[in-house]
Amino acid sequence: MKTVVVATSSHSYPIRIARRMIQDSDIIRPHLGKKAAIVTNTTVAKLYLRTVENMLEQAGVEFFSIILPDGEQYKNHQSLNQIYDELLEHHAERSTTLIALGGGVVGDISGFAAATYQRGMPFIQIPTTLLSQVDSSVGGKTAINHPLGKNMIGAFYQPQLVIADLDVLDTLPPREFSAGMAEVIKYALLGDEQFLVWLEAHMPALMQRDKELLAQAVAHCCQMKADIVAEDETEQGRRALLNLGHTFGHAIEAEMGYGVWLHGEAVAAGTVAACCLSERLGSLKAEDTERVAALFRLAGLPDRPPVFAFERWLSHIRHDKKVQNGRMRFITLERLGQAVITNIDDEALLESSLKEFLPA
Amino acid sequence: MKTVVVATSSHSYPIRIARRMIQDSDIIRPHLGKKAAIVTNTTVAKLYLRTVENMLEQAGVEFFSIILPDGEQYKNHQSLNQIYDELLEHHAERSTTLIALGGGVVGDISGFAAATYQRGMPFIQIPTTLLSQVDSSVGGKTAINHPLGKNMIGAFYQPQLVIADLDVLDTLPPREFSAGMAEVIKYALLGDEQFLVWLEAHMPALMQRDKELLAQAVAHCCQMKADIVAEDETEQGRRALLNLGHTFGHAIEAEMGYGVWLHGEAVAAGTVAACCLSERLGSLKAEDTERVAALFRLAGLPDRPPVFAFERWLSHIRHDKKVQNGRMRFITLERLGQAVITNIDDEALLESSLKEFLPA
Repeated sequence: MKTVVVATSSHSYPIRIARRMIQDSDIIRPHLGKKAAIVTNTTVAKLYLRTVENMLEQAGVEFFSIILPDGEQYKNHQSLNQIYDELLEHHAERSTTLIALGGGVVGDISGFAAATYQRGMPFIQIPTTLLSQVDSSVGGKTAINHPLGKNMIGAFYQPQLVIADLDVLDTLPPREFSAGMAEVIKYALLGDEQFLVWLEAHMPALMQRDKELLAQAVAHCCQMKADIVAEDETEQGRRALLNLGHTFGHAIEAEMGYGVWLHGEAVAAGTVAACCLSERLGSLKAEDTERVAALFRLAGLPDRPPVFAFERWLSHIRHDKKVQNGRMRFITLERLGQAVITNIDDEALLESSLKEFLPA
Repeated sequence: MKTVVVATSSHSYPIRIARRMIQDSDIIRPHLGKKAAIVTNTTVAKLYLRTVENMLEQAGVEFFSIILPDGEQYKNHQSLNQIYDELLEHHAERSTTLIALGGGVVGDISGFAAATYQRGMPFIQIPTTLLSQVDSSVGGKTAINHPLGKNMIGAFYQPQLVIADLDVLDTLPPREFSAGMAEVIKYALLGDEQFLVWLEAHMPALMQRDKELLAQAVAHCCQMKADIVAEDETEQGRRALLNLGHTFGHAIEAEMGYGVWLHGEAVAAGTVAACCLSERLGSLKAEDTERVAALFRLAGLPDRPPVFAFERWLSHIRHDKKVQNGRMRFITLERLGQAVITNIDDEALLESSLKEFLPA
């Protein structure tokens, strides 16, 4: 078992990474009180809810389960209220532990519910997708979407424990597995060129879901994220680098309609757009962007954004949480393996960097 | 001007207490960025919104105002969503400062909106009621109500500044002024016998809204709260003492329907119930309870709870946030001026302590 420790202002917590984790009550027991609530979705419930419930029974914990509809389009107030209602109906207390069993949507919405139910209850993440194992379950960002913007309502709220079971990735549809790989590649691009080279060498085996290699990749990404979060928990500075590809990616998701493009797919395409912007700023070359695009293709991901009007790009980007005092902020690449925060005031420059992806 | 500093895990912030504060942009300016949003309600807007807007104009800050309906019954998801919607429509950023101008309801709901909009924006409180000046604006508790329980959804989120202008208390209806005085008396009972004696001596002048005495009372309560919050920000222990009268008080509010009894009225009556429980536990005498009831009467407050069935009391109390691993927790008095946390498992004891307030 690999363990990565995340140090935050409120407390430190472990991420446990291994196979056959959700069968084993020894790992979760020390982190639980008397009572727990599991939040999952209809898809994951069919696959793993019984196993996790068995684990809690073994652990001697009283529990109940809340099952949400599956999909990004349900990452909204209605699902949040479903959780609140069921917690209240089951007389959940603020010492009851909320356990998120699922991917990024379940983790984000459950984390926000845990952050806000009775002003905060203990929270455990059991991420069941590659994306949530390497990214969304680590670091305490929780949120729901608003009709006017993704992740607009949320909180920074840290879990007590993250359990990343590599075996559950076996049931992940290929498209979702690829989407998770987009975030893995993102880590390499923003801060670790050696890891980029490693990924280029091992991508075919990773896409075959080789568990040894996956354990290495997941642990490496979690360690990179833990280092950044320990330094900048609430994203005042360096943590923003984790948003590489996300400003453009969020624009793509919003433009296409939430859930039409998977988050990871939009991040991959958005990262290519960020590479194009970096080219325009003179820090990347066309062959760098092509190298990035090639790695995304190898991971079964889109290597360019969909085509839509510049005014639409602009409108989405202006709603981004990274906008500060009216200035647009992007994460761009100094070189492959080193990201920086860049303020852009020049809309023409932005437009020209997106020109390949604009209607003719 | 009196200043009380509140030290919390994230940052320290001042509470400024004086007359003629909302005319003076010098006090707020150092705490503002480029843009601000004011949240208030229809009643307070008529009285003070223009003055506060003038202050922001003087301070050279871009701003807009969000006006909620007035009343505890609007401390709900709908009002919260109104704030989110207007923040998004006005392109508020996470560096925009949210300013709460109003009483406890406006402060609690705005604070929760500030805590959760884009995962947290800077927040300033301008409390306009005695209750919010001495209690709810200090210490970072934010919340909205849920149909199944008061303040069930919320967060701990600290403001950057609290401005307590004593002159705005002049327009407070007598009933609301009295309700605020219930929390002032609560502070004395839970932790400061000398302050209790001072209040008994000065209550008639305080009720005449003598500004010198009010400044002393507000500053004293804020200092007591600041000391407790610095020690126990998220209510793991001693902070719970501030809930003296609140478990019974919340039951009264829920039973009568939110907003029928004012929060402070319910707290006064709930504190008398807590005194009766303390009598039953052997720590108070009947004359202590009568002394407390007399001071509440002097402040124009109810001195006993309304009559309703024990099963109703129990049902409300079981939903209280202070319930821990199924045990009911109350704040009781060791003596007047010293509160303690008491676990009660014995329903018969609880019933007998409430017997005066149960149907014949």
